[in-house]
Amino acid sequence: MPDVVVELFGTTDAMRRHRDLVGTAQSAGIPVDEISAKSAAALSETVTPQGLIAVCRSIDVPLRTALDRAPRLVAALVEPNDPGNAGTIVRTADAAGAGSVVFAGDGVDPYNGKSIRAAAGSVFHVDLVAGHPPLDLIASARAAGYRVLATSGGGVTSLADLDLSSPTVWLFGNEAHGLPPNVLQAADDVISVPIYGQAESLNLSAAAAVCLYASARAHNGR
Amino acid sequence: MPDVVVELFGTTDAMRRHRDLVGTAQSAGIPVDEISAKSAAALSETVTPQGLIAVCRSIDVPLRTALDRAPRLVAALVEPNDPGNAGTIVRTADAAGAGSVVFAGDGVDPYNGKSIRAAAGSVFHVDLVAGHPPLDLIASARAAGYRVLATSGGGVTSLADLDLSSPTVWLFGNEAHGLPPNVLQAADDVISVPIYGQAESLNLSAAAAVCLYASARAHNGR
Repeated sequence: MPDVVVELFGTTDAMRRHRDLVGTAQSAGIPVDEISAKSAAALSETVTPQGLIAVCRSIDVPLRTALDRAPRLVAALVEPNDPGNAGTIVRTADAAGAGSVVFAGDGVDPYNGKSIRAAAGSVFHVDLVAGHPPLDLIASARAAGYRVLATSGGGVTSLADLDLSSPTVWLFGNEAHGLPPNVLQAADDVISVPIYGQAESLNLSAAAAVCLYASARAHNGR
Repeated sequence: MPDVVVELFGTTDAMRRHRDLVGTAQSAGIPVDEISAKSAAALSETVTPQGLIAVCRSIDVPLRTALDRAPRLVAALVEPNDPGNAGTIVRTADAAGAGSVVFAGDGVDPYNGKSIRAAAGSVFHVDLVAGHPPLDLIASARAAGYRVLATSGGGVTSLADLDLSSPTVWLFGNEAHGLPPNVLQAADDVISVPIYGQAESLNLSAAAAVCLYASARAHNGR
């Protein structure tokens, strides 16, 4: 990831703890500046900053670039409204082997600090697509040979009945409203995660984990 | 759930919106009191209270009671430290058909307001066991015929290779430290969720969702 880091700031303490990282940055010709704990706290958006702050270039790519690399699994967050959930889903998508995560429509900025932290580094592992219109995403993905699956508590097809072997784009809505009606209609199928107990529904990031890992299992032959 | 509600407080507005609920409480002989929006805000621990507050009895049961009902799936949170994650896992466990959720050892109180809200009602659907010692949980569950599976990023057995048809207790550690070494050692097996991409690990509640739904699938024949 050195090619995305523009500048590195760190407290004396953090630079000592992460000597390797600082060394890597320096050998790559990246400016490294020592700052006070107070400055580190002001620069980071969290209550317990780790003391090391990297200024990075934007890393998102156009949808076309992401699809041209032909990942078998793509996760799309349509109008996400919770940065913590959005970042967690980026991390889960990476773990499940997704090659790209699309932030579709208006919603949480993929560069939101809380989202970046929840993604735990996975924003650097997947092709991030930012602010792509949802209906164009569906049309482009279908044209590229993907099956586009929407998720909804009221979905007609149960995840348990799906054959997930083909390249898939999963569409996840937001916690408050789910997916917009025009997106549900444009998708190839609307899937619900089966509920075996009495819960009304799953939390968004839990539902995404179950769906993405169902694809991962199908793609990896178990 | 009327048998657990001791008293109900609501703002004029909330009581109008939830007339059915208020009616049910009144017919069950539960005292219902109108309060100001300011009082509702003070009584609830959240920034946007829904305006209806129920005082409830404790609902946790002894481990023996929970195991005597012979649920095929049990989730145990060992020393959980994040109330949001703990509540989300209660909700996911309920959705996956777990009959009981055990809060084992010291950690987040299952009655923590944030945990209760994240559980979205599921605390009333499962047998909740509070503060049970982890090693005794393992011994008691094994004696009752359960397979006890610990989870760890460094687990020796991959979830993908498991036969999960038998009654199972899943042990989940906390975000910061995972499961304590003595718990990992006492379990029947230590399981890791396979990582197909470059993420180092999964968020705790995502990992729990993947594990609990793997059991749900095995128990429900798909």
